[in-house]
Amino acid sequence: MPVPDFRVDPRLIEQYVEELGTIGALPEGGLFRPVYSPAWLEARERLAAWMRAAGLHVRGDAVGNLFGRLEAEADGPVVLTGSHFDTVKQGGKFDGALGVLAGLVALRLLRERAGRPRRPLEVVALCEEEGSRFHATFWGSRAILGLIRPEEVHELRDADGLTIGAAMQSVGLDPGGIPTARRDDLAEFIELHVEQGRILYDEGVDVGVVETITGLRWYGVEVLGRVDHAGATPMDLRRDAMVGAAEMIAGITSVAEAMGRPAVATCGTLLVEPGAVNIVPGRVRFTVDARHPDPTGKTELVAQIEAVCREVAGRRGLEVRFETLQDVPPVRLDPGLVALLEDAARERGASWKRMVSGAGHDAQMLARQLRVAMLFVPSREGRSHSPAEYTAPAQAARGIEVLMAALYRLAYAQHG
Amino acid sequence: MPVPDFRVDPRLIEQYVEELGTIGALPEGGLFRPVYSPAWLEARERLAAWMRAAGLHVRGDAVGNLFGRLEAEADGPVVLTGSHFDTVKQGGKFDGALGVLAGLVALRLLRERAGRPRRPLEVVALCEEEGSRFHATFWGSRAILGLIRPEEVHELRDADGLTIGAAMQSVGLDPGGIPTARRDDLAEFIELHVEQGRILYDEGVDVGVVETITGLRWYGVEVLGRVDHAGATPMDLRRDAMVGAAEMIAGITSVAEAMGRPAVATCGTLLVEPGAVNIVPGRVRFTVDARHPDPTGKTELVAQIEAVCREVAGRRGLEVRFETLQDVPPVRLDPGLVALLEDAARERGASWKRMVSGAGHDAQMLARQLRVAMLFVPSREGRSHSPAEYTAPAQAARGIEVLMAALYRLAYAQHG
Repeated sequence: MPVPDFRVDPRLIEQYVEELGTIGALPEGGLFRPVYSPAWLEARERLAAWMRAAGLHVRGDAVGNLFGRLEAEADGPVVLTGSHFDTVKQGGKFDGALGVLAGLVALRLLRERAGRPRRPLEVVALCEEEGSRFHATFWGSRAILGLIRPEEVHELRDADGLTIGAAMQSVGLDPGGIPTARRDDLAEFIELHVEQGRILYDEGVDVGVVETITGLRWYGVEVLGRVDHAGATPMDLRRDAMVGAAEMIAGITSVAEAMGRPAVATCGTLLVEPGAVNIVPGRVRFTVDARHPDPTGKTELVAQIEAVCREVAGRRGLEVRFETLQDVPPVRLDPGLVALLEDAARERGASWKRMVSGAGHDAQMLARQLRVAMLFVPSREGRSHSPAEYTAPAQAARGIEVLMAALYRLAYAQHG
Repeated sequence: MPVPDFRVDPRLIEQYVEELGTIGALPEGGLFRPVYSPAWLEARERLAAWMRAAGLHVRGDAVGNLFGRLEAEADGPVVLTGSHFDTVKQGGKFDGALGVLAGLVALRLLRERAGRPRRPLEVVALCEEEGSRFHATFWGSRAILGLIRPEEVHELRDADGLTIGAAMQSVGLDPGGIPTARRDDLAEFIELHVEQGRILYDEGVDVGVVETITGLRWYGVEVLGRVDHAGATPMDLRRDAMVGAAEMIAGITSVAEAMGRPAVATCGTLLVEPGAVNIVPGRVRFTVDARHPDPTGKTELVAQIEAVCREVAGRRGLEVRFETLQDVPPVRLDPGLVALLEDAARERGASWKRMVSGAGHDAQMLARQLRVAMLFVPSREGRSHSPAEYTAPAQAARGIEVLMAALYRLAYAQHG
């Protein structure tokens, strides 16, 4: 059989995105589809209907992941694509959703144009990735790997105190069945996702081929000085926690800037005490989000960040304390699949660049047991986790064409 | 008549301070005696009783200022001393109170030891200085100068929405009578106050003779950048409002440090938006409290502060906006009275140093119409506006001796 037509009509993906994007829409703008909510359930039912209409065999698992399967000539290790369909609060229509819908479109068109594959192809709508209701990040992909601890069902609670187990029951899922969600028949996973940054957008590149998902460390930093009267205390007698924190943040920024891409460091929160115009602050707490895709680079980055904070504290007579809030190692994606995506992009005439994902994705979890790759499409102005998220239909279609070509090579072609 | 004994028993001032310090005591520690509160009323009645017991003629005015008068041989321009008896929330026993009680002790002992003065002497317990209930700062001293606008009675409201006029009525004062509080018979005002900084404490000096009360400007600074994903946005593509604010605060601090004493600059509050660990901040608002006792120095200080903020904003692609929240010119105190206080310190064998007051005081308001001077006593570790405020009884007594000697020269001696 000849290589099929991989062209994708932008209106097809646009319709899916717009329709799914109405589910969980908030009156103030943006979406909210937290796992096991009514909006989540409605989105899942809609996706199941679309998968069925596309000729896929639909199956849900114990945690609520939804699979659409294109059966092969014979059983064998499955080629998986997809992403998550939950959203953050006031999220957009593209984060996660586009990857699910891209997989749906790819399998629908492959089935229509190339028929039955040599190996089974599945699209997955993962139930939970964002952790925006239960801090249960990667719940869906962890279930597939058998990595959910039994206690989590009772431990994880939402803001109302409801356990994730009770939330599952409220949508008809049995927490006791979680171990059955484990899959040992999956071989590869290719996730299409919006970039969430502005590199592809700024550079006018069609797709990003992700080589590595960055590692990160989150710190809570506490700076302790001495409260003093802002008028009556000369500068040379102060131990000003705010000045210390400001110099630390400036220093942390310089460290990441001097290391250059792909190192990043962000101080996104800061609290001052006592917090009055005319009182020299005695305590400041701020956070640091430091990321680097290379283990050595990450070690160097956090070491320099700690050093610059200690230098400032020593020089200003302050105390500084670090608390590690999260520490995630970098994940290298499968070099063979990276090369395959590049070949597919070349074949489709799409421009591409190798990239680091600075954000976390299900792909990094699934990479623990599967061969994994990721494909980015441009995000307008890099908007992310925002109602302003946008990927033009033509750009989404371009990405899906590359995804289709890659899936075809894996599931249909002899050398896959 | 020979010069009287100016010695003050530390136990006398200690008893007054401790007893007044029980009125308005909070269960969590510290005091709160906002103007026209029950605690304020109780403190005022206690002070009136003590003034009467000291043989002074007691009179309250329309806003609640309380005067204790030692009549002279003949009428004439009055020599005034005292301070305020309201407190900030969780304030200490010394700020304001010590100046009222110092005046009470001074007049009591002068009356006992030197009899009737040549010119009338009064101690004033000013009703309001801190602005901690109504933002009515210097309400008591403004009433004495006739500087309260009639509308203020209806405009100024506390956190519960009560107007200052209604609060006055709740303690039996008629807002309509405010114009009658104006005095045109006052010639000099000498205010004893705790330093609120740590210069006298650190240097082991007995008293500070205040030459100037500093000028200040308060800014609200708004830094506008762009919200971005903390993982997916390289450092070189960011417009991070937090980094800008941090570099501005570090720069503002360097400006004040480079100018040296007496310039000070403080950034006491800061708010970050959106304020998440993994989001590059798009907006930061912080305050600047800049003070300098010399008009030229103050102009230079605020110009350099604005320049450093604009430099950072320009370099980082940020927008910066300044709002002036307060602007108070420096006030030079009366050189003749400064010299008189120095003579008095020398005579009493007290060590002294000329100082700038970095904090605001009723003295700066009364200096608009009277000859004014201020005397500082040490604050342990510079604690201020805190339950930890402390001035040792012996140090307070030392300051009162200098005050007494100065009041004697003005009200009793021929060359006063």
